[in-house]
Amino acid sequence: MENQALRHILEAQQFSLEFMDEIFEEADGLREEVESRNYLNIFKTARELQGRTMLSVFYEPSTRTRTSFVLAGQKLGMNVCWTENAKEFSSATKGETLEDTIRVLCEYYPDVIVLRHHETGAAERAAKVSSVPIINAGDGKGQHPTQALLDIYTIKQCLGRVDDITVMMVGDLANGRTVRSLAYLLAKYKNVRIIFSSPEELAMKDDILQYLERKNVVVEVVNYFWPNYKDIDVIYETRIQKERGSTISEEEAKRFSLTPEKVEKLKPSTIIMHPLPRNHEISPEIDSNPRAKYFRQAGNGMFIRMALLKWVLGSL
Amino acid sequence: MENQALRHILEAQQFSLEFMDEIFEEADGLREEVESRNYLNIFKTARELQGRTMLSVFYEPSTRTRTSFVLAGQKLGMNVCWTENAKEFSSATKGETLEDTIRVLCEYYPDVIVLRHHETGAAERAAKVSSVPIINAGDGKGQHPTQALLDIYTIKQCLGRVDDITVMMVGDLANGRTVRSLAYLLAKYKNVRIIFSSPEELAMKDDILQYLERKNVVVEVVNYFWPNYKDIDVIYETRIQKERGSTISEEEAKRFSLTPEKVEKLKPSTIIMHPLPRNHEISPEIDSNPRAKYFRQAGNGMFIRMALLKWVLGSL
Amino acid sequence: MENQALRHILEAQQFSLEFMDEIFEEADGLREEVESRNYLNIFKTARELQGRTMLSVFYEPSTRTRTSFVLAGQKLGMNVCWTENAKEFSSATKGETLEDTIRVLCEYYPDVIVLRHHETGAAERAAKVSSVPIINAGDGKGQHPTQALLDIYTIKQCLGRVDDITVMMVGDLANGRTVRSLAYLLAKYKNVRIIFSSPEELAMKDDILQYLERKNVVVEVVNYFWPNYKDIDVIYETRIQKERGSTISEEEAKRFSLTPEKVEKLKPSTIIMHPLPRNHEISPEIDSNPRAKYFRQAGNGMFIRMALLKWVLGSL
Repeated sequence: MENQALRHILEAQQFSLEFMDEIFEEADGLREEVESRNYLNIFKTARELQGRTMLSVFYEPSTRTRTSFVLAGQKLGMNVCWTENAKEFSSATKGETLEDTIRVLCEYYPDVIVLRHHETGAAERAAKVSSVPIINAGDGKGQHPTQALLDIYTIKQCLGRVDDITVMMVGDLANGRTVRSLAYLLAKYKNVRIIFSSPEELAMKDDILQYLERKNVVVEVVNYFWPNYKDIDVIYETRIQKERGSTISEEEAKRFSLTPEKVEKLKPSTIIMHPLPRNHEISPEIDSNPRAKYFRQAGNGMFIRMALLKWVLGSL
Repeated sequence: MENQALRHILEAQQFSLEFMDEIFEEADGLREEVESRNYLNIFKTARELQGRTMLSVFYEPSTRTRTSFVLAGQKLGMNVCWTENAKEFSSATKGETLEDTIRVLCEYYPDVIVLRHHETGAAERAAKVSSVPIINAGDGKGQHPTQALLDIYTIKQCLGRVDDITVMMVGDLANGRTVRSLAYLLAKYKNVRIIFSSPEELAMKDDILQYLERKNVVVEVVNYFWPNYKDIDVIYETRIQKERGSTISEEEAKRFSLTPEKVEKLKPSTIIMHPLPRNHEISPEIDSNPRAKYFRQAGNGMFIRMALLKWVLGSL
Repeated sequence: MENQALRHILEAQQFSLEFMDEIFEEADGLREEVESRNYLNIFKTARELQGRTMLSVFYEPSTRTRTSFVLAGQKLGMNVCWTENAKEFSSATKGETLEDTIRVLCEYYPDVIVLRHHETGAAERAAKVSSVPIINAGDGKGQHPTQALLDIYTIKQCLGRVDDITVMMVGDLANGRTVRSLAYLLAKYKNVRIIFSSPEELAMKDDILQYLERKNVVVEVVNYFWPNYKDIDVIYETRIQKERGSTISEEEAKRFSLTPEKVEKLKPSTIIMHPLPRNHEISPEIDSNPRAKYFRQAGNGMFIRMALLKWVLGSL
């Protein structure tokens, strides 16, 4: 039933360097138009995908991903229909399989389905039965490819390059799907070094480490906050996810937090990223530091998703 | 306060044969336009009800009915505002009556209200106080008239007729509002025979049986799966609804399930329907059998609802 | 980070008499257009804010406020994206601060954020970090300024004036934010007398009483239903809010309810208002009494919100 010609977005591995460059360029242009708040420009944008329909189906709560997809679609003129918590409110509570739900939704002639699900591999399962493109908006501990793309985009935007950099990922690396997807993408660039810094029980999983080894990425795995601050071009902080069952103490978590004291020791060019929401990993005093890019990063999400929608629907 | 001139959709009994033919023809045309994915056509469709507003108020979870109504409205150019679970999130939790809620919503000048409610008769109560048309999207164990209409439409589409057929309804006939509404509508056609097949405690209720008797429909009530497979033109399977308190065992439920072995014994022209979601009543191997029409049936729901919206709003 | 030039709607105190007159006049015109159901007119209305985006973020359930804001935006041609219960479904469950949520949402380039929150002062906190206008749609026991504005609008519409009137507010005056905001606004008019009638434990708080004293409003605080019915121009009934922890007995609550007997003793010109939802404060027999204005009042909410959206976005 699978239609190989459909342009699904399922996992970070599928993005080539050329593809990413094309999406980034489109995202640049879309940001310029939207930022201008010139409503004549915006009307032009709003005709690009006019009449197309996005179905946004979220089995897990998510403010930013859901909202940024909805607004991305609406700004391109799409009709958008969403579900805030399909797990609780849909026929999933009546025992329907994901495959059946997707098959039924396709019968309503959407043009694309955006799917967030709590089970790893859900997006791939959906794509197998879908007659329209599926965009994976995060599946369990699996992947979150649009997040990975916006992360790379943010690095490129702020540093001017993705080659020849040192990225330190900090926090919950075992459960955070964003760091997994990002690691996959970083491996496509030249001369990238990744430092994984986390409590031992939240260390990056072996599958990713082995993948990076095969791709000749220089990797360091440490259970402390990397002491050589000047090495770092990108600090990617993540939240210790209580809702995924972590039992790390506040004390232990603090060792991996970013404080103004640590930030002062960084190079001026280092950028600080976070997929958000944050808890105590980054103290609010850092927000006004020019190195802090996490809000910009979140905003990039909408523009990347606009560009991806255009590609998925064949108008890029 | 009741306005008799309003075009409410409250119960299956209200549909005449002529009305159904008109709606089916319109649904055919709408499907053709939408299926073409010719966006020039779709823009034409999207101007039909432009500027009109649909308020979709669901007191019970429902993926397919809610989504198909929202997309039906959006594809016709309507503004759509929905509530996923009004029971939990609205002023119902503050003790407001349905009548008050409807009266207030009417003050916001919607053009139609689509209502799903957990209490039998809710749609009729809403219509009594509403200044705009009400479409009943299912009320408790009561009615689900748009579902009944799409079921008849699917039979006509697949068999070419609704007269002179034998329909077997299987499963939970006591709690399933879809089978109740469908039985009402089938009684309008000539020479229809209905076999009700269910565990005894889930048998079709007497009110429907008496109604069918008055209408001279040939009815058989059995507590086993009908053994004369060649009799059957339509098998209408339904789910044993755990959320409505059924205590039937898995074992017992299985006797009424459709397996590939049973399907092989059917006539090639027999069609298999199900209002979905399904649990184990129809095994997934059957999905690729040409007799399986349940996904098509679900999709018909959107086109029937588009046609009904046009009728309700006076543009049909 | 605060942008003083932004046109936030945060608290009733900010509205001048001139501002209110301007909004009321605009609301009159918008009602006329929408009531006509002349879709050519409505298309004109729908171009006023076309391309603009409203983000509606509700941390508390609310049918009427949320729906009226969504429809207000849609009728003006805006893209609207909403969250029904942000408290439960958003990254708030992951420990994100309101400030972070607002900062992220601003990065998606909405044109206005409508916020309902369970904490007093939330709207002000949001405005401090927002790069777009915030409209306070109710914050905890704090303020609900758009409700106050529609209340004043209803009084002016029905009585022809707001000066020289006696308003009796009845019920839960301690927890009802609507009566607090309304009292602030009434203080701006000439020769207004306010009777606060409630069980002692639900009496109006001192901060408001002191404010009214400073403004030379004549105030009476009583723990019974005011016996001099002919004094009253406006009865503003409110619900005893069980969800905010009140322990008043049914018996006690009844003393403050409006019955047909009480209504008969009122002047013919007295109007009866209620922010809705109601429980037993106003018996349904009163609905058809010409003095009953609470449904009209609810409907005014949408038109006031349309006018406010136009002002906030600079097209008024």
